[in-house]
Amino acid sequence: MAIAGAADRPDVVIVGAGAVGCALAWELAGRGRRVAVLDRAGAGEEASAAAAGLLSPQSDVRSPSPFFDLALRSLRLYPEWVRVLEEESGERVGYRRTGLLRCALSDQEAEGHRSYLWQRERGLPIEWWDAAAVAERVGPRLTSEATSGVFFPDEGVVDPRRLTRALAEAARRRGVEIRARTEVRRFWVERSRCRGVETEAGRLEAGSVVDAAGAWAGFDRGLPFPVPVEPVRGQIVELELPAEAPALVLHGEAVYLVPRREGHLLVGSTLEHVGFRKEVTAGAVQNLIAQAARLMPEISQARFVTAWAGLRPATPDALPVLGGCGIEGLFFATGHYRNGILLAPLTARLLADRLTGVETRDLEPFAVSRFSSGAPPGPTPSPSSEVFR
Amino acid sequence: MAIAGAADRPDVVIVGAGAVGCALAWELAGRGRRVAVLDRAGAGEEASAAAAGLLSPQSDVRSPSPFFDLALRSLRLYPEWVRVLEEESGERVGYRRTGLLRCALSDQEAEGHRSYLWQRERGLPIEWWDAAAVAERVGPRLTSEATSGVFFPDEGVVDPRRLTRALAEAARRRGVEIRARTEVRRFWVERSRCRGVETEAGRLEAGSVVDAAGAWAGFDRGLPFPVPVEPVRGQIVELELPAEAPALVLHGEAVYLVPRREGHLLVGSTLEHVGFRKEVTAGAVQNLIAQAARLMPEISQARFVTAWAGLRPATPDALPVLGGCGIEGLFFATGHYRNGILLAPLTARLLADRLTGVETRDLEPFAVSRFSSGAPPGPTPSPSSEVFR
Repeated sequence: MAIAGAADRPDVVIVGAGAVGCALAWELAGRGRRVAVLDRAGAGEEASAAAAGLLSPQSDVRSPSPFFDLALRSLRLYPEWVRVLEEESGERVGYRRTGLLRCALSDQEAEGHRSYLWQRERGLPIEWWDAAAVAERVGPRLTSEATSGVFFPDEGVVDPRRLTRALAEAARRRGVEIRARTEVRRFWVERSRCRGVETEAGRLEAGSVVDAAGAWAGFDRGLPFPVPVEPVRGQIVELELPAEAPALVLHGEAVYLVPRREGHLLVGSTLEHVGFRKEVTAGAVQNLIAQAARLMPEISQARFVTAWAGLRPATPDALPVLGGCGIEGLFFATGHYRNGILLAPLTARLLADRLTGVETRDLEPFAVSRFSSGAPPGPTPSPSSEVFR
Repeated sequence: MAIAGAADRPDVVIVGAGAVGCALAWELAGRGRRVAVLDRAGAGEEASAAAAGLLSPQSDVRSPSPFFDLALRSLRLYPEWVRVLEEESGERVGYRRTGLLRCALSDQEAEGHRSYLWQRERGLPIEWWDAAAVAERVGPRLTSEATSGVFFPDEGVVDPRRLTRALAEAARRRGVEIRARTEVRRFWVERSRCRGVETEAGRLEAGSVVDAAGAWAGFDRGLPFPVPVEPVRGQIVELELPAEAPALVLHGEAVYLVPRREGHLLVGSTLEHVGFRKEVTAGAVQNLIAQAARLMPEISQARFVTAWAGLRPATPDALPVLGGCGIEGLFFATGHYRNGILLAPLTARLLADRLTGVETRDLEPFAVSRFSSGAPPGPTPSPSSEVFR
């Protein structure tokens, strides 16, 4: 049984209505394509709702790479992208170029900041602050233990829940159909061509299919190549300070503090390989608060608002999976790991280019084919105490 | 304007629909009295909903006193009281005689347990366990740092929310009227006689009035004597363990762990003089979890369920305020501090005796008159790291 007649056949079906899937749908609809987005839950109910919304390519990357270029380009799209999005959706998404300060609380941590020196040599905006500058710029709320900091003035924040809601709304206004509670079981593949998807309700035919299902992107085990995307849990605590939150993002070795409206503050995050388990754990809540209070002692007096967990889509080499594959008409836009919110605008643009016949080579380093036998396996993501968004 | 005609005039109006107010209403109705309970919020929405439900007079009191006798008598009422309550209300209240273990994690803490020796001399049920006995009786979930423990086999737990709901329901079935969202502004006193109460909607006449308003009991500033009841905040964290919670209450120096159904566990509690502020704070959540994990390391892996705060009604000498005063027809049943749930059955019985003319001298040590000038002030409650329910 088909659930859509030929007249209803979308040009593109996107599996997954997170920030990436909705951004791509919005972009494609702007280019005149008929798009349907299917989601096993609802728009933005998984990792996109759980993210802290840090937009920090520079502070997050310690060495140059194609990934760094991708992330930086996506950050530069943000202001204009958000402007159009807010106009079209009628919603505000909380984007702010706050700047981000990596604080060192010891000489050893300060020494680690030398790994950013290449960014200065490349002419990127980055500032080294000594203890006096840190104290002056952040004020007495920061611990007096801060010995120095590296400031990234172009980095900022967005509210991922509001962003994804706005993306879904803007996409709908461009004619995109978003079907919630619709689980795709497998791709509908015939003679190495993807003709659509198979859901519980039957087949849905489409010109192209994009797998933007985040941590669930490997759902079709019948593909002739691996899609090694796995969930990595991240937990976040939301607090409310008696006064306004700091104007910038404070980033220590173990946690980051993201300001939200009206004195609210997010403390993130953990990095846990525990499968599809979204529990918030007592130990994570305790440790996040303890580490945050090391950076900003008044945290102990802050109101505990709530805590949550989300599942980042991670690949073995910690890089996204973007573009086509050996099956005609089947594309991937997943594996964004800690950077789905940051990479949403550029992912949408590049995938839309690829799907509408615009030439691009930017996706090549991120092809799913790199995981097939013959290709050398990349490094696994660090399972240590590294901090993630 | 009166809001009730003479035909509606209750024999007793109780201000405050917490566990104490509802228990007294239920008791009085059982003795044939017409009772109305007024509450600024709703039944059991304040401290009674926030309590952990520890029933632990022995482990909580370090020296003999009239208060100890009161608490112990109330504990002994529990089994039969709960049996009748559950039968009448049709609800289960989670009462269990679990026993409570005071664990020592150092020789110094063990030394402190000598302050319980008088209870053994008095023939009360109490057991001294060495490290081997503690390990055997509690199992490997308890930290191996436990050096010894004192076990109180008669102590236990109840679920205060279900208890208060059952009390309100049982009271209603005996004809008690419970009026939520009804704030009493002051007592209606004429010529040293309390004729009823004054609410926003007007006066309500009553044969007698009982102030059971918990931390709000001092609301009428116009009385000719002080009712020095102040709020003391307590915060509790609720967790869910992967396996069943321990069968008994585990009590360390800094926190206690109260088992609930289906692997749930309460970790309490703080003691904070912060006025009528019910915020949950980041520092308290962090510290409660950290201290709990010291007792039971698996706590770090437990699911964080929620956290809340309540306001205990505390007096300067940490004893309740029970019985009559210089104003005829006006009575008090408040200031129960850490023991409102434990003391509810006996408070209800003794106050009902007093209101129905049964002779009792048990209330004398707890009269509100002890705070009037001339009477020597008692000690203030310890503001230290002492643990409270």
